Amino acid sequence: MNRAMMMSAAKNLLTRYGSTKNNIYRCMSTGKLTTVDVNEKSGVAVLTMNRLPVNGLNLELLRDIRNDIDEIEGNKCRGLILTSASSSVFSAGLDIMEMYKPNQDRLKEFWTTLQDTWLALYGSSVPTAAAINGHSPAGGCLLATSCEYRVMLPKFTIGLNETKLGIVAPKWFMATFCNVLPRRVAEMALTQGKMFSSEEALKVGLVDELAQSKEEAIEKCQQFFATFAKTNPFARAMTKQQFRSKDLQQLEDEKAQDLEAFLFFVNQPSVQKGLGIYLDSLKAKTK
Amino acid sequence: MNRAMMMSAAKNLLTRYGSTKNNIYRCMSTGKLTTVDVNEKSGVAVLTMNRLPVNGLNLELLRDIRNDIDEIEGNKCRGLILTSASSSVFSAGLDIMEMYKPNQDRLKEFWTTLQDTWLALYGSSVPTAAAINGHSPAGGCLLATSCEYRVMLPKFTIGLNETKLGIVAPKWFMATFCNVLPRRVAEMALTQGKMFSSEEALKVGLVDELAQSKEEAIEKCQQFFATFAKTNPFARAMTKQQFRSKDLQQLEDEKAQDLEAFLFFVNQPSVQKGLGIYLDSLKAKTK
Amino acid sequence: MNRAMMMSAAKNLLTRYGSTKNNIYRCMSTGKLTTVDVNEKSGVAVLTMNRLPVNGLNLELLRDIRNDIDEIEGNKCRGLILTSASSSVFSAGLDIMEMYKPNQDRLKEFWTTLQDTWLALYGSSVPTAAAINGHSPAGGCLLATSCEYRVMLPKFTIGLNETKLGIVAPKWFMATFCNVLPRRVAEMALTQGKMFSSEEALKVGLVDELAQSKEEAIEKCQQFFATFAKTNPFARAMTKQQFRSKDLQQLEDEKAQDLEAFLFFVNQPSVQKGLGIYLDSLKAKTK
Repeated sequence: MNRAMMMSAAKNLLTRYGSTKNNIYRCMSTGKLTTVDVNEKSGVAVLTMNRLPVNGLNLELLRDIRNDIDEIEGNKCRGLILTSASSSVFSAGLDIMEMYKPNQDRLKEFWTTLQDTWLALYGSSVPTAAAINGHSPAGGCLLATSCEYRVMLPKFTIGLNETKLGIVAPKWFMATFCNVLPRRVAEMALTQGKMFSSEEALKVGLVDELAQSKEEAIEKCQQFFATFAKTNPFARAMTKQQFRSKDLQQLEDEKAQDLEAFLFFVNQPSVQKGLGIYLDSLKAKTK
Repeated sequence: MNRAMMMSAAKNLLTRYGSTKNNIYRCMSTGKLTTVDVNEKSGVAVLTMNRLPVNGLNLELLRDIRNDIDEIEGNKCRGLILTSASSSVFSAGLDIMEMYKPNQDRLKEFWTTLQDTWLALYGSSVPTAAAINGHSPAGGCLLATSCEYRVMLPKFTIGLNETKLGIVAPKWFMATFCNVLPRRVAEMALTQGKMFSSEEALKVGLVDELAQSKEEAIEKCQQFFATFAKTNPFARAMTKQQFRSKDLQQLEDEKAQDLEAFLFFVNQPSVQKGLGIYLDSLKAKTK
Repeated sequence: MNRAMMMSAAKNLLTRYGSTKNNIYRCMSTGKLTTVDVNEKSGVAVLTMNRLPVNGLNLELLRDIRNDIDEIEGNKCRGLILTSASSSVFSAGLDIMEMYKPNQDRLKEFWTTLQDTWLALYGSSVPTAAAINGHSPAGGCLLATSCEYRVMLPKFTIGLNETKLGIVAPKWFMATFCNVLPRRVAEMALTQGKMFSSEEALKVGLVDELAQSKEEAIEKCQQFFATFAKTNPFARAMTKQQFRSKDLQQLEDEKAQDLEAFLFFVNQPSVQKGLGIYLDSLKAKTK
């Protein structure tokens, strides 16, 4: 965020938080691939991704998530918990079908929407947490690590496994990862395309807590939000955004180049071939 | 520090350290709110903040600290130990009275002096350590983390708790914090405005050692300085300054904007209100 | 790496990795002070520094290492293991004789070759590991930490001890160090010029594993490379280079100034004096 944006954001937040502290609205779900439930007592919104079977992040799901984030922000919710309607997959990451033999216009819109979703989530003024109730590779891990806190159920996996798919995690995926993990751990995991078990993820700090059920995970996310009880919401939001400003600003500045690089890679014949092989292996698994 | 500054600093240091290695001067305290005692044998200066009851960092105290640092640098002391004359508070941080219903000219001078004090302490060529013999919130934590080493007495608290006061720790507070703590720990602590107990601070690395008394803390700081015994003071100072150069340079480059942002926030009615409430709560406690 | 370089590197890598996956060549050693042996089955190259007694990094050894890296890259090896022909020293670091009473032209070429060697090793597309079978101070530590993985034999020492020699580790030495260690650990070690025992190095993460013999160390490096078995070599290389791009770019941008700074410091009378004293102490030890 540059200086002018920061000042504008500050004024914006001051206006919103300046008036009513306890005036909690009920958020309404705007999309078809997500649901948003707000606890009217706590003011915490649970944003559930509901594109079964694996919450593949296609254009429509990303649009819904992005709109939900905006609405949750606008409604002054006290927290945003991201979770999944599936009992086995948090999100399988970017929907490969968006990248395999793509329509170029839709491909551009897809990536731009992913960029905007990340900017909204990573930079959100509302406290955020992920209740990771299933596997969370690649884009799924990006969403989870963009939140401020992660609670994960056991026996699942999480990580940025792009190198195994023949693609390169963009700089802002890496920045998000490095905001959570030590550089040493991040570099090795990124180059290896490592998927961490829930237990391993806890050990290295990729997630903050384990929980035995989705309900317990959501409860622990709420307990995390409770640690902000005595903070000023405006000061909290500005502190978060300033802490993350370098990462946010980098993508803001490089959105066009980042899109160009994505299009360049995805359209490589070797990458298309790799995606094809991966899709075949997925089909074989699900048979 | 830019290139020209670095070269100039190098020449400066070469001149100072080039001649006499064992020629230790007795530092004289220049201010009224601090005392400086130099161990003539070890060459280590103990800078004691002495604005009771809580070493609130007002303009005058900051000026004294800043002048002391300059004098300690100029006198080629072998180390600087920052501590408090109080037995319960290291420093309560910025004196709220400087910010509450402020005179604007003094407010500017106050913040500029804080900036300069940090630049002098964080970038000092002399080895620095804090003997944290009492609570150390906000600005107190900033001073402590600007040093190269921290020894703390048990049963006190330390942290950047700005979000609880409705204010936002500036970027350079955050950079100082991140020079000590893992990013993950720093972000969570900053947004929560978390105060760490001495034991928690030791565990996350916010302090390096605990000590049972102020004397023991000072002794441990001196032992830390002894780890530099076989290093070349010039090379040591340049190494430290180069390691911290990005942080130092950032404030150098953004001093005016940083001041502007501070004035903007402090003068917000909501912030003034928050400070008023905080002041009332302090008064209630001290009754 | 800037954008154009990145795209060019991408095309380059795509060309190289696009065609044959299992076509492993035998690398030939090009220099006289190194040997390169390639396991034809695994495709892993072992680059052995062989300038006894201590692998002092002089111009010729650096040239050989640099050429070897280029050849290993060009021959699509599956990994590069850096090790030493000595049983007690991995590398003693920069050959002081290159800096003591230097010929200025050779001094420039020496430093430029060191820069280029680091750029080649730190940014290499081939997976890299160091089998640290002896002491590894200063430049030896730089080479080891430029690799992606480190396995060390017990009872040796490793670290950037420049402050003890009266010199200042350049920014890119520090960046390499910080890519492996937490900032807190890095700053203290750099200012102290600390040499870590093998066991201490393992504890702080400066090395990844210990091994009882050189053979076991090489075996463990190969096991590290095996963690990349399921990754796409092109995506892996781009991921690594993007992760390290800020560090690489910084030296690319500042090569001339970095050379200038090196020449400035080395030619200081006080530094020359310090090097002389150090050389005398080495001679005394080896008698």
